[in-house]
Amino acid sequence: MIIKIKPNTQDYDIEMLKNYLNEFDIEWQEVKGKKACVWCLIGDTSKIDLQHLKSFNAIESVTKIQENSKCDPYENKPKTEIKVGNVTIGGDNFTVIAGPCSVESREQIISIAMECKNYGAHILRGGAFKPRTSPYSFQGLELEGLDLLLEAKKVTNMPIITEIQSVDMIPRFVKDVDIIQVGARNMQNFHLLKALGKIDKPILLKRGLSATIEEWLMSAEYILSGGNKKVILCERGIRTFETYTRNTLDLSAVLAVKELSTLPVIVDPSHSAGKWSMVEALSKASLAVGADGIIVEVHNNPDCALCDGPQSIKPKRFKNLMDDLKKIAPIIGKKL
Amino acid sequence: MIIKIKPNTQDYDIEMLKNYLNEFDIEWQEVKGKKACVWCLIGDTSKIDLQHLKSFNAIESVTKIQENSKCDPYENKPKTEIKVGNVTIGGDNFTVIAGPCSVESREQIISIAMECKNYGAHILRGGAFKPRTSPYSFQGLELEGLDLLLEAKKVTNMPIITEIQSVDMIPRFVKDVDIIQVGARNMQNFHLLKALGKIDKPILLKRGLSATIEEWLMSAEYILSGGNKKVILCERGIRTFETYTRNTLDLSAVLAVKELSTLPVIVDPSHSAGKWSMVEALSKASLAVGADGIIVEVHNNPDCALCDGPQSIKPKRFKNLMDDLKKIAPIIGKKL
Amino acid sequence: MIIKIKPNTQDYDIEMLKNYLNEFDIEWQEVKGKKACVWCLIGDTSKIDLQHLKSFNAIESVTKIQENSKCDPYENKPKTEIKVGNVTIGGDNFTVIAGPCSVESREQIISIAMECKNYGAHILRGGAFKPRTSPYSFQGLELEGLDLLLEAKKVTNMPIITEIQSVDMIPRFVKDVDIIQVGARNMQNFHLLKALGKIDKPILLKRGLSATIEEWLMSAEYILSGGNKKVILCERGIRTFETYTRNTLDLSAVLAVKELSTLPVIVDPSHSAGKWSMVEALSKASLAVGADGIIVEVHNNPDCALCDGPQSIKPKRFKNLMDDLKKIAPIIGKKL
Amino acid sequence: MIIKIKPNTQDYDIEMLKNYLNEFDIEWQEVKGKKACVWCLIGDTSKIDLQHLKSFNAIESVTKIQENSKCDPYENKPKTEIKVGNVTIGGDNFTVIAGPCSVESREQIISIAMECKNYGAHILRGGAFKPRTSPYSFQGLELEGLDLLLEAKKVTNMPIITEIQSVDMIPRFVKDVDIIQVGARNMQNFHLLKALGKIDKPILLKRGLSATIEEWLMSAEYILSGGNKKVILCERGIRTFETYTRNTLDLSAVLAVKELSTLPVIVDPSHSAGKWSMVEALSKASLAVGADGIIVEVHNNPDCALCDGPQSIKPKRFKNLMDDLKKIAPIIGKKL
Repeated sequence: MIIKIKPNTQDYDIEMLKNYLNEFDIEWQEVKGKKACVWCLIGDTSKIDLQHLKSFNAIESVTKIQENSKCDPYENKPKTEIKVGNVTIGGDNFTVIAGPCSVESREQIISIAMECKNYGAHILRGGAFKPRTSPYSFQGLELEGLDLLLEAKKVTNMPIITEIQSVDMIPRFVKDVDIIQVGARNMQNFHLLKALGKIDKPILLKRGLSATIEEWLMSAEYILSGGNKKVILCERGIRTFETYTRNTLDLSAVLAVKELSTLPVIVDPSHSAGKWSMVEALSKASLAVGADGIIVEVHNNPDCALCDGPQSIKPKRFKNLMDDLKKIAPIIGKKL
Repeated sequence: MIIKIKPNTQDYDIEMLKNYLNEFDIEWQEVKGKKACVWCLIGDTSKIDLQHLKSFNAIESVTKIQENSKCDPYENKPKTEIKVGNVTIGGDNFTVIAGPCSVESREQIISIAMECKNYGAHILRGGAFKPRTSPYSFQGLELEGLDLLLEAKKVTNMPIITEIQSVDMIPRFVKDVDIIQVGARNMQNFHLLKALGKIDKPILLKRGLSATIEEWLMSAEYILSGGNKKVILCERGIRTFETYTRNTLDLSAVLAVKELSTLPVIVDPSHSAGKWSMVEALSKASLAVGADGIIVEVHNNPDCALCDGPQSIKPKRFKNLMDDLKKIAPIIGKKL
Repeated sequence: MIIKIKPNTQDYDIEMLKNYLNEFDIEWQEVKGKKACVWCLIGDTSKIDLQHLKSFNAIESVTKIQENSKCDPYENKPKTEIKVGNVTIGGDNFTVIAGPCSVESREQIISIAMECKNYGAHILRGGAFKPRTSPYSFQGLELEGLDLLLEAKKVTNMPIITEIQSVDMIPRFVKDVDIIQVGARNMQNFHLLKALGKIDKPILLKRGLSATIEEWLMSAEYILSGGNKKVILCERGIRTFETYTRNTLDLSAVLAVKELSTLPVIVDPSHSAGKWSMVEALSKASLAVGADGIIVEVHNNPDCALCDGPQSIKPKRFKNLMDDLKKIAPIIGKKL
Repeated sequence: MIIKIKPNTQDYDIEMLKNYLNEFDIEWQEVKGKKACVWCLIGDTSKIDLQHLKSFNAIESVTKIQENSKCDPYENKPKTEIKVGNVTIGGDNFTVIAGPCSVESREQIISIAMECKNYGAHILRGGAFKPRTSPYSFQGLELEGLDLLLEAKKVTNMPIITEIQSVDMIPRFVKDVDIIQVGARNMQNFHLLKALGKIDKPILLKRGLSATIEEWLMSAEYILSGGNKKVILCERGIRTFETYTRNTLDLSAVLAVKELSTLPVIVDPSHSAGKWSMVEALSKASLAVGADGIIVEVHNNPDCALCDGPQSIKPKRFKNLMDDLKKIAPIIGKKL
């Protein structure tokens, strides 16, 4: 970390800064030029609060030389692998999570679950509580949806994942859900993240609509630092000026988080594009780029889906997709 | 609302669509061309879920002709005015909310509060619970900070505003806080918004970092539709590719929400720019553009501020700012 | 196209609008509701200038129902195929364009060209004129660079592509270059596009840094409408708030232009990420998503590259990449 | 500037780097830590090509501590003032440029010009050559438009500004135009910028649709470094995810360029919002924020404007706007 010292700073302010820096396990060295004077901080600067540091009288600017992240790309730490039932996420596995956007009825969820299972999906997805932009939109079957998801789990013996909305739901989710999903809108709901850091359950953390990769990893850090090391990242598209697609899928981000962390990262091709016609191609691209899996929406009747129908693919298409993914996986060095 | 019908749609699918549309208080008319067939829906389409509608087999695309908002710019509804103690927000009032980013100590908050009051501020701001990107950053004095804020209120007799983090804090906030702030990161924390719709307390709703104006108004709708009509909007800058400023202040959005709603809208020039050197100029611009007020960070020692020091101005500068604002206000037709 | 008529419009203004619309080969129909009155325009509305139409007194708003593009996704037009020497771009071919960012010396360009050729590249890239953000940056060898590129062509018998800067260079480029590249910064240099529409030479049109897909296709339209039908689109990443990568590669855009046009589209994984470590993975993803090819930077000594070294891969990596691409291609239905 | 050295770099690579750095008038100092080794470069690093520097074998990353700009905010250079006829742009002047988006006919341009003049406008704007997204849109009266603009100049004795499209137009523009406008789409048309650097005529350089402030200043540098010091910057809105307004006006950028350069900066409230209803408010905000002027579209019949009618205001509104601006100016310390 590099600190640029303000011209003509008084000794008093320099002392204040030194006292603060001495609280951390770091060394620094002063470099004086004609126009500027900088201090180079070396060591673990991740505990320093940038905003706070910038507020010191003596400081003109602060620049990070190393990403402010706990994960050091230079130490080849083993990649994090997360076990969910008989499924392992991360490492050289490519995990396919499939199911409807939202749970709508018993036969809907069970029939889709069975088809997904038959075609090779590992984990069942299904929304019970749906965060919607408009208060007048379908908000999900809520607890009833969760019960139906559990029935589908019993029938298919697949682990289930569904989205949590708030802290008060945690006990029920810990009891019944195999992977707890944190939606894009809650990526910086720190109150929720802190609570999820205290439980022992895999968390799928979606990237916020306009979250930088660093913010995304910092949100993961809220969970990790609480003690829960089972975090799965999920790239689901970011907001840009382009309106033809619902969001812009950022596959470079998959590579970025693999350089900056050891966490597994999967891709959501359904929400990113918002168009079923793009789901298969983007899924193959996600595997080709090196993602650890996909979470894809499958619906046996997208035209009647109560939510996000336009971005769900039919089971037959899902089958074809799985066939192609199985052929591509070994070339990429992934097991599927 | 315009629906484009898919070519060669079967009667059965047309019927399904008609049955759905008949649930709403709308009329429609079919228009056939060589290549395309569209239905024009007329009436209050705001209750229709776009995503759901798009999922019908018969539909190729759906286009809104009128903003999907409850507020109709054509009926000249009276502007919403919100009373807080002896302060009125909205109408032709320009309200100045001032104070430190976060409450740090008794004398800090009280001395700043008194200076702000003396120079003409109407409402006192101060963060007790601070949402921070990094779990290793100062998170605020929390409940102790709220207690100190209440002491400052007693001394200065100014109403206070502070940010809420979660539903479980609501009872305490209803009891002690005059305006409850919902931060940008919680703009789509629908669980929280629904709960705030059930109480009788003014809510300041900050625009999300990358929220469209429509999403922002829809989040307000979550509170309004719950019965709480006391919503104040706050533009605080959006995320763009520009990195010189912390965010990009979007003053056109102030004009937009005034065209689309009757709610008062204030501007946060401190968080948007992230640079104290820009706060005064952006505050004057906010008044000139027609905002109903500003929420500005004032700190008697920004260089030691535990949070966001670099974007706080000193009391002396705040005094000068107030002097200029008082001169500009009458030209804009605002009372200050 | 849907026109919303202003409330209480006078007959005179309605007449003016009708006179204007009668100039086009379209029909329209009026739909009246309680609150609103709209006209539905049907037919080829692509010749209507939206901005102009909006300026009519009678019109409150204009909404497009069909993309304002010449390419109709419903008629299954044959995909455009472009012949360059013995190479065919488009259709079911996957074309690999490779070479250094900029031509630096005779042995540099010739040695790289020969290696690229040996490993299966079809076309040789190399910058002679380099557009640079700073006037103090290396601007390319210019005409000398073009001469060296021609030597490399003679030796390897590969067609060459290089970027044009201005209209006055066209005669020389028509004489010596096989594919003329229009850079992202010139995507809306209409003066240049019009001139390129009048020649008979393939044009590679890069997407602008923040160009929407529609604007990109409209820029292609400038060339196509001039008579030159040999346009190749190139996705090279868009500008977003994310700074870890140089740009954000938008692979959904590849699918979008295939829905909206018949033109071939290739991907530039080198400029989009700006990191050599991501080039191979993004290249495989580009093939997997269905792109018609890639344009990739290869340098035998990236560490000394005079321009964009950090995003070039070494020949050995390029060889491995080609091996993987050859395995993936048949699964995607592409010839390589 | 800070260079991070790769771990385990060989002496040979260190030498190469030193040789390169010795070409510049800079000093550097090495700082070694447990994990990292950095060099601090001090002096005028503006001549160093970042991309090139990054390409050295020894270098892992490069970080700028000071903006890579010629303008040093610490030396209080006098602000650049530019004389155009009897008008001075910059300093404490607030300059109002007004006129129609495009010249349409003799009486149109002359009548608007006279009204603008009467109400206090200083300079006349009017587009002769219009860059349009679609090749099927009105492209301007071109040379005939320029002739009409000259007539309006004779009648009103106002200096004129109009947009240039390409290098071949320069001689005519030097002869007849008082300020040459470079449009947003040409901000990085370096071929054009270099040519404009060699003439003695004021240039109004619009900010590109998604140009960073640094890129904008670097484009200005292309003109300045050529010898033409008469550059006026123009903020005209940037592209974001928000679609309610045509662009997002970035008034913080006005403050930023004033911190980073001595050049005058004016604001275009018409193109940024794309809505006439916002033009007046945004103009006042531009003055309040400290801009050196505005360039605003005025049309006596916006409903029939051949281009951008919806964002033009009528002369009567322009008069009211001028009245308000004259009242606000002295408070901001500007002459109008």
